[in-house]
Amino acid sequence: MYRDPVQSFQPEHQVPASLRPLRVGMIGIGTVGAGTFRVLRRNQADIVARTGRGIEIVIVAARQLGRAAEIVGDTGVTLTDDPLLVATHPGIDVVVEVAGGTGPARDWVLAAIAHGKHVVTANKALLAVHGAEILDAARRRGVAVAYEGAVAVSIPIVKALREGLAANRIEWVAGIINGTSNFILSRMRDEALDFDTALAQAQALGYAEADPAFDVEGTDAGHKLSLLAANAFGMPIRFADAQVEGITGLSRLDVACAEQLGYRVKLLGIARRQAHGVELRVQPALLPATHLLAQVHGSMNGVMVKGDAAGITMYYGAGAGSEQTASAVIADLVDIARLDCTRAAQRVPHLGFQAHAVRDLPVLPRADVCGAHYLRIPVADAGQAEAMANWLAARQVPVRRVALADAQPGIGPQVLVLTETVVQADLDQAVQALHAHPALAGRVTTLRVEDWMA
Amino acid sequence: MYRDPVQSFQPEHQVPASLRPLRVGMIGIGTVGAGTFRVLRRNQADIVARTGRGIEIVIVAARQLGRAAEIVGDTGVTLTDDPLLVATHPGIDVVVEVAGGTGPARDWVLAAIAHGKHVVTANKALLAVHGAEILDAARRRGVAVAYEGAVAVSIPIVKALREGLAANRIEWVAGIINGTSNFILSRMRDEALDFDTALAQAQALGYAEADPAFDVEGTDAGHKLSLLAANAFGMPIRFADAQVEGITGLSRLDVACAEQLGYRVKLLGIARRQAHGVELRVQPALLPATHLLAQVHGSMNGVMVKGDAAGITMYYGAGAGSEQTASAVIADLVDIARLDCTRAAQRVPHLGFQAHAVRDLPVLPRADVCGAHYLRIPVADAGQAEAMANWLAARQVPVRRVALADAQPGIGPQVLVLTETVVQADLDQAVQALHAHPALAGRVTTLRVEDWMA
Repeated sequence: MYRDPVQSFQPEHQVPASLRPLRVGMIGIGTVGAGTFRVLRRNQADIVARTGRGIEIVIVAARQLGRAAEIVGDTGVTLTDDPLLVATHPGIDVVVEVAGGTGPARDWVLAAIAHGKHVVTANKALLAVHGAEILDAARRRGVAVAYEGAVAVSIPIVKALREGLAANRIEWVAGIINGTSNFILSRMRDEALDFDTALAQAQALGYAEADPAFDVEGTDAGHKLSLLAANAFGMPIRFADAQVEGITGLSRLDVACAEQLGYRVKLLGIARRQAHGVELRVQPALLPATHLLAQVHGSMNGVMVKGDAAGITMYYGAGAGSEQTASAVIADLVDIARLDCTRAAQRVPHLGFQAHAVRDLPVLPRADVCGAHYLRIPVADAGQAEAMANWLAARQVPVRRVALADAQPGIGPQVLVLTETVVQADLDQAVQALHAHPALAGRVTTLRVEDWMA
Repeated sequence: MYRDPVQSFQPEHQVPASLRPLRVGMIGIGTVGAGTFRVLRRNQADIVARTGRGIEIVIVAARQLGRAAEIVGDTGVTLTDDPLLVATHPGIDVVVEVAGGTGPARDWVLAAIAHGKHVVTANKALLAVHGAEILDAARRRGVAVAYEGAVAVSIPIVKALREGLAANRIEWVAGIINGTSNFILSRMRDEALDFDTALAQAQALGYAEADPAFDVEGTDAGHKLSLLAANAFGMPIRFADAQVEGITGLSRLDVACAEQLGYRVKLLGIARRQAHGVELRVQPALLPATHLLAQVHGSMNGVMVKGDAAGITMYYGAGAGSEQTASAVIADLVDIARLDCTRAAQRVPHLGFQAHAVRDLPVLPRADVCGAHYLRIPVADAGQAEAMANWLAARQVPVRRVALADAQPGIGPQVLVLTETVVQADLDQAVQALHAHPALAGRVTTLRVEDWMA
């Protein structure tokens, strides 16, 4: 199986580049890489019929050569344990990076670009952290860096944003873009589980990693959101400025109280234009139960986009999975294969807008973001509800609804409040002051209410 | 305002075609044309930032020059009442056909292609009827014919099918692709209206034409479905073979009975691969009430696609409207503008697959289509329910559920039956025989049940 990577390369000087198969080197052949390999082979005839040429994996870099050999089987694909050999291989047109991680992946991708290779990656962390450097290098070298698989894998949302909706001034993007968190939230609601139990189920079923922090603390959704915002608004990838909260602190009591009020708790990534900048935030939030995004269950993803011409459109599909991600990786390869010259392969600019037109829109600090909020206020005496509402209204937090949580065994009375739209700084101040209120019987919980998405 | 169209054209020989604005001639400036004109001007800066060049409407053909002059205002756009002058104008790169109709539009589009112009159209009827001829001419001339606006206007579903999902063998496409019918069905359900009343409301609100036949009898959805199927399966546009039923015969009683059983009636377009051909059909059908497509309300559209790698993805958005359609028309223009040579403008083949690879998949005749059905059987005596089920089961129509419709004033007892999956021919034969059954008190109603879409 193992052959010398350079010796086994056969140049095809006679065949025009537009007709011979696109030659691909792949770094990593784990879940996504194996899926990509499998789908490319299974659907090769259809892909050639769509593309007008083949797409051929020539060489694969893998950490475990034995396992890689099992996957590629008797197909003549060269295996190596040296990713840089793939990145710099003279016989390939495109490097598919599906190894994950940030540091080494950055080096491989930059090497590939320096050698004039197009790059396809599903690595959102890589782009969120090193995207500026990578895309700048690619722009100067005139090669494509495609990353449809990095956001809501099976859903062609990057393509929708920067091609399908290219006529629009995008007003906002809001999405459920972490399948692990959505699976856990669905379980917490459907089975009345607490977070830890739902997480354990997600881990047992393969929907969550052994170390789930990346997913459940919102980092992964933040990476994806920063890519969506860049392509929606023509701004740089600004993950470091995003406001990121996860679902680890969420109690099943709040999931139940939200239901009682007609809402569902979802981990939402929201990028939204405002007068003085953009909101860029990942937070657990209350969505009206009848909202289309509230129908996105289990590990599925959904992204809603508001454009000034198209109005609201929504995109739904699997947010993870071997062949689901492969679908996006191969779509990027087909895009490259459908063009016959290096110049044109960069048909769509890397962030959807021409590099010189990308503007460094300020990301609003948390304190300046406006919105409605849910408050759950444990009180000693259920008769306090109206008084609490008045107390908040007197402190720049007008209330539009107040209710008592349905009684639950072992839990004292809880005043539920939905506020009007307020500035976060005002809310924070009021909640801080509320903690000194004599009627309080425990810590106040606050969650965003997102009911403006229509 | 009116200037001589040929005299007013200024050649720009010095500017490379890839940098100067894309020059567009538009035929028709009704609802969609006016929206296209408006959005192009309003978002010109963003569109240039995305595309790297401008998109400029140079000349417009209109039937009512006075009205057209009001729309284009003081913008220097040339007006003419001769569509052929636009189609053959030496100063334009692309002809946008948004006049509608089939016969004359065919001539204009063929003239534009013969003169080497790319064509963008939102005219599904034109493509469903004359698509083979038009796309063949375009292929031979090497120009693009783009039609994102012809299907579920605001949703980039054509792009999703043939680019975003290019890695997939598509198994089926199912969609709510006629906003008028969906609006009427939503009203019939929400307000318990009969068809005629809901139609009158749709007409009063501008959701239905004065002559609504095209929409409510399924023709429009059939046109769109034949385009979706071509791009999904790599088959010709086969509208003439599609099985098309509308909602004109639907009674509010069946809408209510479907609800009682946990279903919602939607007009669905379904294209589905089977062993011996493809299903291609537009029919009112029962969808499980919790299904995502059942959440598509009012005049909105939704299309669900099953690919072997991506799994199920769904696309949702407005199905009609001036700027909503303009969003798609301009996206097609951006696609063309982003390429700098005529050859590459045909980057994606006209039906998503290379012309030589398009296979003439047989469309299954109605009699051969399998599926589950809903039957409403008016009976003299409510005690007949079980007997009816047994009677059907004895005639190749096994029953999975039988119920009595909730009593309604003035309406006699109704047996409701959900069948197992049966061949349509067997069902038709059984229903025909049932009409001679002595217990029957009126005509039997049948509707498809589509609960396999998961």
